[in-house]
Amino acid sequence: MLLDGKLISEEIKKRVAEEVYSLNDTLTLAIILVGKDPASEIYVNSKTKACEKAGIKTKDYFLDNKIPEKELIDLIRTLNEDPLITGILVQMPLPSHISEDNVVNSIDPAKDVDGLNIINQGKLLNNANCIVPATPKGILSLLKRYFVEISGKHAVIIGRSKLVGKPMALLLLNNNATITVCHSRTENLKEIVKRADIVIVAIGKPKFLTADMVKKDAAVIDVGINRVQGKIVGDVDFEEVSEVASYITPVPRGVGPMTIASLLENVVKCYHMQNK
Amino acid sequence: MLLDGKLISEEIKKRVAEEVYSLNDTLTLAIILVGKDPASEIYVNSKTKACEKAGIKTKDYFLDNKIPEKELIDLIRTLNEDPLITGILVQMPLPSHISEDNVVNSIDPAKDVDGLNIINQGKLLNNANCIVPATPKGILSLLKRYFVEISGKHAVIIGRSKLVGKPMALLLLNNNATITVCHSRTENLKEIVKRADIVIVAIGKPKFLTADMVKKDAAVIDVGINRVQGKIVGDVDFEEVSEVASYITPVPRGVGPMTIASLLENVVKCYHMQNK
Repeated sequence: MLLDGKLISEEIKKRVAEEVYSLNDTLTLAIILVGKDPASEIYVNSKTKACEKAGIKTKDYFLDNKIPEKELIDLIRTLNEDPLITGILVQMPLPSHISEDNVVNSIDPAKDVDGLNIINQGKLLNNANCIVPATPKGILSLLKRYFVEISGKHAVIIGRSKLVGKPMALLLLNNNATITVCHSRTENLKEIVKRADIVIVAIGKPKFLTADMVKKDAAVIDVGINRVQGKIVGDVDFEEVSEVASYITPVPRGVGPMTIASLLENVVKCYHMQNK
Repeated sequence: MLLDGKLISEEIKKRVAEEVYSLNDTLTLAIILVGKDPASEIYVNSKTKACEKAGIKTKDYFLDNKIPEKELIDLIRTLNEDPLITGILVQMPLPSHISEDNVVNSIDPAKDVDGLNIINQGKLLNNANCIVPATPKGILSLLKRYFVEISGKHAVIIGRSKLVGKPMALLLLNNNATITVCHSRTENLKEIVKRADIVIVAIGKPKFLTADMVKKDAAVIDVGINRVQGKIVGDVDFEEVSEVASYITPVPRGVGPMTIASLLENVVKCYHMQNK
């Protein structure tokens, strides 16, 4: 069965729009983009559009590639203090002269819509109420919406990034899955993945996950967004693997739109954290 | 081969004592004990003794069982501000009317010798420089001291506590192990554990891990401290499992003394964090 991220994300976005409307207040997401990376511009664009549709205002800060770290952090501090700003999103990656850690940790945790601040990460580790990074959050919503069993099941996550792999593992662990985190150094990867009830691939290699690596009737989540000859393909060999898996996300129309929908949920959550 | 925690912990304690001596400054650990739990008193006692031997001063705060949370936190705030206090240790568990999270999060992260503050936990998740909880830190030191291969190997951790299971998993992941976290809800536990190169058991059930669950030549770490008929026993059936494993920790003289030694290292690390 196809895990239709596009469809479910529309449901979520509709729900967010209704909630924003009912709040009868203005929610504003500050979006900071440093430099002119074309991929980043596309992401920022689609986030902006999704916000607008949900009734969330956006305020763009398009900054020069050469901006000193201190100036960027000063801007964030100003936005932290601004009661009219609900959330702050800094589009990654940043130019190499700027520390991404310093930047995300300068964001007020209650305005940290990407959940990358050390405080939100620590809370996730402690299974406390926090802002969860949008991609793993969206994946969990998708699994739950299709009633994929999680508790007690073995989830194998391929990839250990701060943005996807690690928070995904913690989120599933907090939902009582047994979790395994694999990565580039993992020995016997195939053997390990083959035992998973849920496989989540976030490694950035086209068609990395093949059918022989997947247990029959596993649920397979493809986080990859790779550009191959002008086409977007995932990390999963969809044609092959869909013959084996019981649930599978397509690329596109899978995890991507769920990430955007979860970002909108995070903006609303930030609003509530600031107004309780 | 026996992973001799007692022996290695003596090496570490000696090294800490030498460093403390060379610092030519006074390091003081504040130890807070609420109520009169006999087990907690024993732990506090052995921590105090180890500090003294290493040349680290201790300052005890033995508080009444009924102390309000606010008063405890006020004390911690005072200790945070006190330049003569290097580290703050709050012996767990706390009485049920006090939130352990509120208490540990009121400790200055640079004085948080147990590494339980949300900031230190978030940093561990991000593989940043931080104070790591003493038990997982001690286990890692022990594995490394005996040259047990970690990178690329599959470590299975049984238990997902904030104090041991989760930080252990992250620490091993940061050292390039493939990690699996199992717990009470895990299905097919035996099958999963049986594939591990390194097994870490922190579940608090006497003789829980039996030989049939262990792969030949695995390394087995026993975090359990269970009192059975007046004797201390671990979570591992030592007699049986030692026939199968290539490395194994005894109980006592395994993880316990390593935890104490790592605590001393954490006090010194706190000192450096405050004096850099």
